[in-house]
Amino acid sequence: MITTALTRMFELEHPLILGPMGGVAGGRLAAAVSNAGGLGLVGAGYGDPQWVARELDLVGELSHRPWGIGFITWSTAPELLELALARKPAAVMLSFGDPRPLGARIKAAGCRLICQVQDLAGARLAHEAGADLVVAQGTEAGGHASRRATLPLVPAVANLVAPIPVVAAGGIADGRGLAAALMLGAEGALLGTRFYASDEALGSARAKALIASASGDATARTTVFDIVRRLDWPPGYDGRALRNRFMGRWQGHENELAGALASENPAFLDAVQAQDFDTAMVWAGEAVDLIDAVEPAAEIVRRIGREAEIALARGAALCRYPN
Amino acid sequence: MITTALTRMFELEHPLILGPMGGVAGGRLAAAVSNAGGLGLVGAGYGDPQWVARELDLVGELSHRPWGIGFITWSTAPELLELALARKPAAVMLSFGDPRPLGARIKAAGCRLICQVQDLAGARLAHEAGADLVVAQGTEAGGHASRRATLPLVPAVANLVAPIPVVAAGGIADGRGLAAALMLGAEGALLGTRFYASDEALGSARAKALIASASGDATARTTVFDIVRRLDWPPGYDGRALRNRFMGRWQGHENELAGALASENPAFLDAVQAQDFDTAMVWAGEAVDLIDAVEPAAEIVRRIGREAEIALARGAALCRYPN
Repeated sequence: MITTALTRMFELEHPLILGPMGGVAGGRLAAAVSNAGGLGLVGAGYGDPQWVARELDLVGELSHRPWGIGFITWSTAPELLELALARKPAAVMLSFGDPRPLGARIKAAGCRLICQVQDLAGARLAHEAGADLVVAQGTEAGGHASRRATLPLVPAVANLVAPIPVVAAGGIADGRGLAAALMLGAEGALLGTRFYASDEALGSARAKALIASASGDATARTTVFDIVRRLDWPPGYDGRALRNRFMGRWQGHENELAGALASENPAFLDAVQAQDFDTAMVWAGEAVDLIDAVEPAAEIVRRIGREAEIALARGAALCRYPN
Repeated sequence: MITTALTRMFELEHPLILGPMGGVAGGRLAAAVSNAGGLGLVGAGYGDPQWVARELDLVGELSHRPWGIGFITWSTAPELLELALARKPAAVMLSFGDPRPLGARIKAAGCRLICQVQDLAGARLAHEAGADLVVAQGTEAGGHASRRATLPLVPAVANLVAPIPVVAAGGIADGRGLAAALMLGAEGALLGTRFYASDEALGSARAKALIASASGDATARTTVFDIVRRLDWPPGYDGRALRNRFMGRWQGHENELAGALASENPAFLDAVQAQDFDTAMVWAGEAVDLIDAVEPAAEIVRRIGREAEIALARGAALCRYPN
């Protein structure tokens, strides 16, 4: 059992947080992660109130341990935040945008504020927002993120926001990654893609199978899936997905795509409905190399905890005596 | 003292390799790193035989421990390799290109072959080349590299090439990063930018001072410094440097730059001579956040080794008892 500031804050058995993936991290997955001793976060995505209310009611019903919810800061209406706070999450995570306005309300509600940041400028805002925990997210993450990489970002953020505890996100899918995060000065790790490939994740079985079989060489960051969905992400963010035919067609031709939305937007939404992943995106991080099977979330939590303990013990053993 | 497959292979006191930075990692720096118990590699850069002969003679004279040399595979003439092998390096590192043709000659000379790779496809070639050691280099590295990030790349490469030992490169500048690399399954770390900011590094004192004061948010990958120098790098590689005025002018306008070389190339070379770093590049990785001073290389080696031991001991202590 690994004990850190993160496990103490939420009484966890493993220093692991479920990345609040929109449309994927629903109440059932969040509850499975929390019940296994991690911190489950429901992903509010672009903020459909009915979906959020249903999934939060579900996690409240299924979980007997602390859980929370994660919002995309720039797309979150204050009323949606109130809907969530009324259900008494242990933590609310804000990502992608200035966390100070919503952060103040979260703190006032007596809820732990987690701020996910992508660079040092973001870490400064998280500090100002009074974050209880800062997630430093690297560019190797699946889905939306920015340009800095996890390995150098985590210690730099830890230096900057100390004594606020830091959690590493991006590129972690096994116990080696969790142990590495702890060495970097983080108090745990947040994992998205690894939990996408879990039984309890929402989203299609075919997408999960693609993640389990993909190589990390085959992912790329892109804005094309945001453009085609008419999502107005602020500059500096894009999404990492498995390369597919749609990305191959439009990557580098973003202006052309923006001019073709009258036909491309409905065709894309049809492809999403049809689970046609030659066109629709499968968000996935570079750590897909380390994911070989779709598994129950609880097994993932426990195995990563155990693997990290073994790695840490081996690391200490390297120090003892020279051969 | 940390003992790994890397330290055993070269009888090192610390599992650290000097990144063979062209024009920066000369004989004096390589000798300082080797004499402090790491593995110093001279950087052959684009292969000026006179420079390489001089710096290899220097490291041979100054070092009383194993040292080596690193080549840019695609730009290395067989005669230059012979010039190096005649001086009996303990190791030759090949980066950026298919290592098999030159690798065969290196192995035939009884020299250890180190292959630096940037993705899984490269790791497969390194395996075929009979590499004794594979360096997995992430995109956060300073200077030339590719797109994959260190944290997810290292365990994936370690899985792929086992039992060949792997070393992590990119984004590492302190003992936290070295300890993290060991957790990921690497046997050590290769550091470039950290040693650029050392007393013994070649290159200008002003460039070193810029590295010591820069933020990792302020670096970016770009091809503009290759285009303006008429260097024909293969697709997929670019260089990470501190953002400056020249990068701001030409990034995203690469074709325009390629068309303006008649005036831009000589002006750029003048700026390099004049150490005008508003125009000339300072290669630097994202780990510049962790570099605050220009120091003797031996101090850097010893401090990082000590810091990593402390981190590893702390990691094991996290496991003992839950609070």
